[in-house]
Amino acid sequence: MADESQRGSINGQASNTDDAITSSNNDNAGQLPWFSPIAPGNVRDRTLENDVNEPAETTSLLGAREPSVNYSHFPSARTSSEDDIAVGLFSRPKPKRPTFGARRHTWNPSQLKALTEPIRRFKRRSGAYDEDKQALVSEGSGIRVWYDDYTTIDWIHDYVKERIRVRKLHSIKGIRGWIIQTYDGAQGWILVFLIGIVTACFAASVDIAAEWGYDLKEGYCTTSFRLNRNFCCAHKNINGEECEEWKSWSQAFQIDNNADMFNFFSYVFVASSTQQVVKPKRKQLKPYAAGSGIPEVKTILSGFVIRGFLGIRTLWVKALSLAMVVSAGMTLGKEGPFVHIACCIGNILSRLFHKYNKNEGKRRGIISAAAAAGVSVAFAAPIGGVLFSLEEVSYYFPSKTLSRSFFCAIVAAVSLKLINPFGTGKIVMFQVSYDKDWHTFEIVSFLILGILGGLFGALLCKLIILYTKYVRNRSWLKKWPVVEVMMVVIITASVNYWNRYTKMSSTDLVYDLFSECKGENDHKGLCVNSPEEMFDVFCLLGLALISKFLTCVFTFGVRTPAGIFIPSLLIGACFGRMLGIAIQYLTMTHPDFPIFAAVCNQNKDNDCVIPGVYAMVGAAASLAGVTRMTVSLTVIMFELTGALTYVLPIMTAIIISKWVADGIVKHGIYELLIDLVGHPFLNSNEEYVEATTTLELCQRDLEVIDVKDPNTIGELKVKLKVLGKSMSGYSDAGFPIVDDSILVGYIASTELEHAINSLHSSDDTIRCCFKEPPFDSESVNFTVYTDQAPLTVSQNASLEVVLEMFKKLGLRYIIVVNCGQYVGVIHKKRLLGYLRQLEGKKDDDFIRE
Amino acid sequence: MADESQRGSINGQASNTDDAITSSNNDNAGQLPWFSPIAPGNVRDRTLENDVNEPAETTSLLGAREPSVNYSHFPSARTSSEDDIAVGLFSRPKPKRPTFGARRHTWNPSQLKALTEPIRRFKRRSGAYDEDKQALVSEGSGIRVWYDDYTTIDWIHDYVKERIRVRKLHSIKGIRGWIIQTYDGAQGWILVFLIGIVTACFAASVDIAAEWGYDLKEGYCTTSFRLNRNFCCAHKNINGEECEEWKSWSQAFQIDNNADMFNFFSYVFVASSTQQVVKPKRKQLKPYAAGSGIPEVKTILSGFVIRGFLGIRTLWVKALSLAMVVSAGMTLGKEGPFVHIACCIGNILSRLFHKYNKNEGKRRGIISAAAAAGVSVAFAAPIGGVLFSLEEVSYYFPSKTLSRSFFCAIVAAVSLKLINPFGTGKIVMFQVSYDKDWHTFEIVSFLILGILGGLFGALLCKLIILYTKYVRNRSWLKKWPVVEVMMVVIITASVNYWNRYTKMSSTDLVYDLFSECKGENDHKGLCVNSPEEMFDVFCLLGLALISKFLTCVFTFGVRTPAGIFIPSLLIGACFGRMLGIAIQYLTMTHPDFPIFAAVCNQNKDNDCVIPGVYAMVGAAASLAGVTRMTVSLTVIMFELTGALTYVLPIMTAIIISKWVADGIVKHGIYELLIDLVGHPFLNSNEEYVEATTTLELCQRDLEVIDVKDPNTIGELKVKLKVLGKSMSGYSDAGFPIVDDSILVGYIASTELEHAINSLHSSDDTIRCCFKEPPFDSESVNFTVYTDQAPLTVSQNASLEVVLEMFKKLGLRYIIVVNCGQYVGVIHKKRLLGYLRQLEGKKDDDFIRE
Repeated sequence: MADESQRGSINGQASNTDDAITSSNNDNAGQLPWFSPIAPGNVRDRTLENDVNEPAETTSLLGAREPSVNYSHFPSARTSSEDDIAVGLFSRPKPKRPTFGARRHTWNPSQLKALTEPIRRFKRRSGAYDEDKQALVSEGSGIRVWYDDYTTIDWIHDYVKERIRVRKLHSIKGIRGWIIQTYDGAQGWILVFLIGIVTACFAASVDIAAEWGYDLKEGYCTTSFRLNRNFCCAHKNINGEECEEWKSWSQAFQIDNNADMFNFFSYVFVASSTQQVVKPKRKQLKPYAAGSGIPEVKTILSGFVIRGFLGIRTLWVKALSLAMVVSAGMTLGKEGPFVHIACCIGNILSRLFHKYNKNEGKRRGIISAAAAAGVSVAFAAPIGGVLFSLEEVSYYFPSKTLSRSFFCAIVAAVSLKLINPFGTGKIVMFQVSYDKDWHTFEIVSFLILGILGGLFGALLCKLIILYTKYVRNRSWLKKWPVVEVMMVVIITASVNYWNRYTKMSSTDLVYDLFSECKGENDHKGLCVNSPEEMFDVFCLLGLALISKFLTCVFTFGVRTPAGIFIPSLLIGACFGRMLGIAIQYLTMTHPDFPIFAAVCNQNKDNDCVIPGVYAMVGAAASLAGVTRMTVSLTVIMFELTGALTYVLPIMTAIIISKWVADGIVKHGIYELLIDLVGHPFLNSNEEYVEATTTLELCQRDLEVIDVKDPNTIGELKVKLKVLGKSMSGYSDAGFPIVDDSILVGYIASTELEHAINSLHSSDDTIRCCFKEPPFDSESVNFTVYTDQAPLTVSQNASLEVVLEMFKKLGLRYIIVVNCGQYVGVIHKKRLLGYLRQLEGKKDDDFIRE
Repeated sequence: MADESQRGSINGQASNTDDAITSSNNDNAGQLPWFSPIAPGNVRDRTLENDVNEPAETTSLLGAREPSVNYSHFPSARTSSEDDIAVGLFSRPKPKRPTFGARRHTWNPSQLKALTEPIRRFKRRSGAYDEDKQALVSEGSGIRVWYDDYTTIDWIHDYVKERIRVRKLHSIKGIRGWIIQTYDGAQGWILVFLIGIVTACFAASVDIAAEWGYDLKEGYCTTSFRLNRNFCCAHKNINGEECEEWKSWSQAFQIDNNADMFNFFSYVFVASSTQQVVKPKRKQLKPYAAGSGIPEVKTILSGFVIRGFLGIRTLWVKALSLAMVVSAGMTLGKEGPFVHIACCIGNILSRLFHKYNKNEGKRRGIISAAAAAGVSVAFAAPIGGVLFSLEEVSYYFPSKTLSRSFFCAIVAAVSLKLINPFGTGKIVMFQVSYDKDWHTFEIVSFLILGILGGLFGALLCKLIILYTKYVRNRSWLKKWPVVEVMMVVIITASVNYWNRYTKMSSTDLVYDLFSECKGENDHKGLCVNSPEEMFDVFCLLGLALISKFLTCVFTFGVRTPAGIFIPSLLIGACFGRMLGIAIQYLTMTHPDFPIFAAVCNQNKDNDCVIPGVYAMVGAAASLAGVTRMTVSLTVIMFELTGALTYVLPIMTAIIISKWVADGIVKHGIYELLIDLVGHPFLNSNEEYVEATTTLELCQRDLEVIDVKDPNTIGELKVKLKVLGKSMSGYSDAGFPIVDDSILVGYIASTELEHAINSLHSSDDTIRCCFKEPPFDSESVNFTVYTDQAPLTVSQNASLEVVLEMFKKLGLRYIIVVNCGQYVGVIHKKRLLGYLRQLEGKKDDDFIRE
């Protein structure tokens, strides 16, 4: 059982209802337990599982709190470098030597009393993460237990572990060695192949179910209830109304008037049944299936562990509820949920192969590839998927991951094409057929579209965040998510019902907005030729724009699976088409205007400008404003529309939009959501202007383990408790190991707990040694659990160097030394807390009710 | 003058003919002076400029050579970890304590005599690279002089420097601060904007000149000699023969027969005039304009300095000779040269902005963006350009560089479209118009194409490398590059003349091979309907394939600008079209075969399969086999052809081809060329199976500077000489600074030289101090030049960790310590030398005659 709970630290085994980690406020979507760096009052002894309902004071077992060991005490301002060096270049003043930080703990009676209490949490840790102990120890890395929930992974360790494994394989010679090595190399490809196929199957199922559900709102198939309208009338012309196998509800119930009301009720019905699934039934079951999922996937890929987020249960709930939400026709996209589903599949299938199951770092490479498959099936955009994973989702994306993602995206796209869920065989969603090139004067319009896209995108981001932060999280809505969804559905339906454009499904509307006016299809009245009609369409589209924009703000963030792509595209397509119609109006009313006269009068058929192109460019600009993607977005637009001729206008609008949006709101929607929820995400693209030094940032008053001390089990337990008390990011922390103030190693709290636990002894007087050779032969040797070569940095080093090391090497901690002497530790979460402060975050940004 | 020679260490100021660094064998393209790790006999005192022609013994000023300080003495095999830890997990044997490596030098008389000689090289270093000395020193980084030629740059230092600059800007408050910061932020965008425009102008000029030159072989324009045929006959139908303004040479000289011979002579004439430009006139002028340039650009972007390679002179020579080569119609592509030209422009324009001019790290970001512009103008493929830069050329590619590249590529593409050099306004080079989807059974054909592409690609790589290594470099060809070009041109022309397909220009042939047989155009006889004709075309294409393949092997590597894209595409298109014709033949001769019957017989017009599609897929596969690109290649194929429907077949063939080619030859052509030339490129995608430990790899017998020693100028000069003697990668090396065996800093040899030189004193008894506070007040303070916070790693650390740090942080050196005590240094070039050995390279791979 204990071993079971350790399997796959980001997997779906969320069935441990007695999970000791889950604190009482874990069931709130907006709050994760790992991070409360500012409020010391929130620090809770998380090693004890039964005190969650006790008042804060009684949780303090160990007497006085130590406020100095808290993330809130950061150095607030950099000491002016001019002052420091004022004496001149060649007579630099003596640097202030820090007081040595290895504080010895003196045990007071209440602390010693605490030793007698059982530390129940230790019982949970018995499964070791690493197997090849000898090699890991000889490489100086030491072994690890499974990463705890809400902790950061140690990329360096996982990397070393993988290289040891590979080296071992390469030491096998001969044919057998060749076969084993080849199979080992092929595992990754086999895995992504499987992920691609399974993802395509899931996507096809969701698509079919959603289409069936969507049609079910209107009627049902008399030949077989399971068929949707398309398949039911497969032998007929689909657009022809004469398909008597398909019966609308009004026909079925002989209700001739108010047939539309069924639509309405079905909306509500479907939405509420969705909520029955998504709603967390138990406190421990977190609402992981809600929302887009991309912020969490990003955080996980950056090296964080959120158990159960990519698990089997989440997968099923998300897929099922996505089908329901799409069939309900809400203003939601499916790219985010599909990426999440694909990542779940990637994570689950990783368990098939030992090398991915037991290596969190490597597994994240596979999840990156799976994310590409998600976009690949959501939009039939394989290349866009790879680039989306590269540009937006992934953290580390080496060349190997690139080719894996590429392969995974192909497999997913080919599988989906072969499954052919819609029966059309088409892979381009919004196929356009523009056959004319753009005119030079239109560059100005594209620039305007870029600016508009940036404005709308930034505004959308801002409003979504503000609404979530100040309205949803601070009102009764937070406690009644189901009611909120109902309200959103009802309001959306009521608003959208009276406009012929908003009444359509979002994808159909986007398709029509992108379309060129050719032939007889007037695309729901979008193709108009007289100025008066144009004005009507312009106004209708304006209303559609406003209503879609507002419903998107209210909808994105409700407790359902929800992507932002389609709503953003829709908003952009609306204002794009509006601008297109406006310019078409100008060319028609002022054909002699010099600019128009030069290019338009040659062909007198009013198609000097194509409003559909403006819609497409506007859609790209709007999405760029929301997500700040560039290359991947261009390629996705390509693959969505097939309009290669317009690649330059699209690119221009995207970059302009990105600039404008960056100027208004610094980050895209995914980063904003990560910030809002408070995930420990170290943004590798962000450039900070640091205001402190390495020496000042590092935590100097941390408990250390001195190898010269007796280090009895009892003392170590107290140290663990003190650590748990003083640091909220407890499971990420640990103890530097020193030998007379010289740093010799580091042991993480989780490994120390495991080591103590695996002794299976209640004798607290056993001595432990942390360095070879042990001082006395009776002590137990914990050296195997220590990192004997922790990365260090000089206290003189620039904080930028530290930051670069954290970003690029994926460290959990770095130890600050001064000429070999231990000075302090910088943990990743401490760094993150500092960077958040630096970004001018207020306290209430951290603590969300 | 001295300052001038320092400006822009990768720029084109190659005019210092008295450049002391240039050793005697620098004029050979295949040999760079930085790296001769294996042969101790080649080690030459590079600080002395006049001894190049002296015998090796006399260059040894300092008596006995120290063979132990040579890259050739790597630990050859990892000590088995099983043996090490055999004693068991909890009783790990005591690690072997290394002998402390800080060897004190004892001066012998001949060495002391050497002190009296002037060290002329010091006179060259007067320009310091860094300006904000105080801040850099307070950040522990110290200041640097300009990077020397053939050295690696220190990314970390440049990064810290940039952050200091930014922090300073951010300390300016108010409106003024806002304006300054905004302008500073905009500089990068302004710069890439300029680069885009200038690149487009260069590309247009090259295109126009090449087209004019190409037409000049046939005749000239009577109205204006400067016009090419297209513009000369602009008012006429170009294909119509009735353009009397254009006169062919045979008409002009009234030669009716043998008119074709003019073609031939013009080939030779153009090629030889090319050589007059490309050929190095002086020994110091290296033939940088030859070849594709991408391997060198890759090396530079990975953090190496090759002065003059991206300079003004190289730019002009390359642009001019590219126009000539293209107009000569050789089997060469222009993507490589265009990337090189764009990077030159990027490097030169960087000098406009101080923050890029004085920061080699940041400048490389701009050069990455410029590379995108290069592909963007070469193939009208802006997105493909960005991805090419990302996937193939660049080393570090953060998100900011991505958006800059994106913008740069757009600007270049839009500018080129507005300049419109061909007068057609088209941006898609090989526009295709397939309107049918592919059949499921064709997947098999695409897989075959993938395999063929991999085989041909790998074979091409292999043959090019083998030919260059064993034939070109070991025969008289090496000394007579001009004669070689002549021969290649003559042979190419003679072979290609008798085949109607090879006689065409490469791009025209690719276009025709890609084309669908529609309408009346039979695309030079490629559109055939009878089985007999098919056989003829098949054989002709087979001959074309062989001749193009062989000429490509001989051509790529001659001393002219040359890309590999178009030849690879051509080869792939040939075998692709051949397979397409073969399958078309099958469908025609066996229409009742079940697979064909199911899909083909419905439309009885023989277009069940489109051979053009096969050509396109084959071209993609072939290029994938040569370069091993995936995503960028797919997008480039897209942008070249506009065939979105076939994205899945193209992707499938690409990944299969990559697998096959990877199985045969491990690296793509660019990596192979880097290897061949011996550039110090640390491949970040390569995964090594290390066979040694950090402790064994590090260089433990390096001279150190002990702060407790007197450290007179004279002693330091001797140390520098010893270092220059014992290490071939001298300018990259330096001295650890220790204080009683505790590491306190590091000073690079170049900085020490600069420091000594800037004293302007010939008194060798002056004492120098390297640590605050100085031991005596009379000593000069060199602390400002020392890196006071060098990155260190424990001797227990896994070599994988060291490798990761070098790859991801861009280090020049790392210092190995044991509990704070100095143990040794690992320089980047030492690491590279070791990795090369690891890859099983033989000695003759390093030393190329």
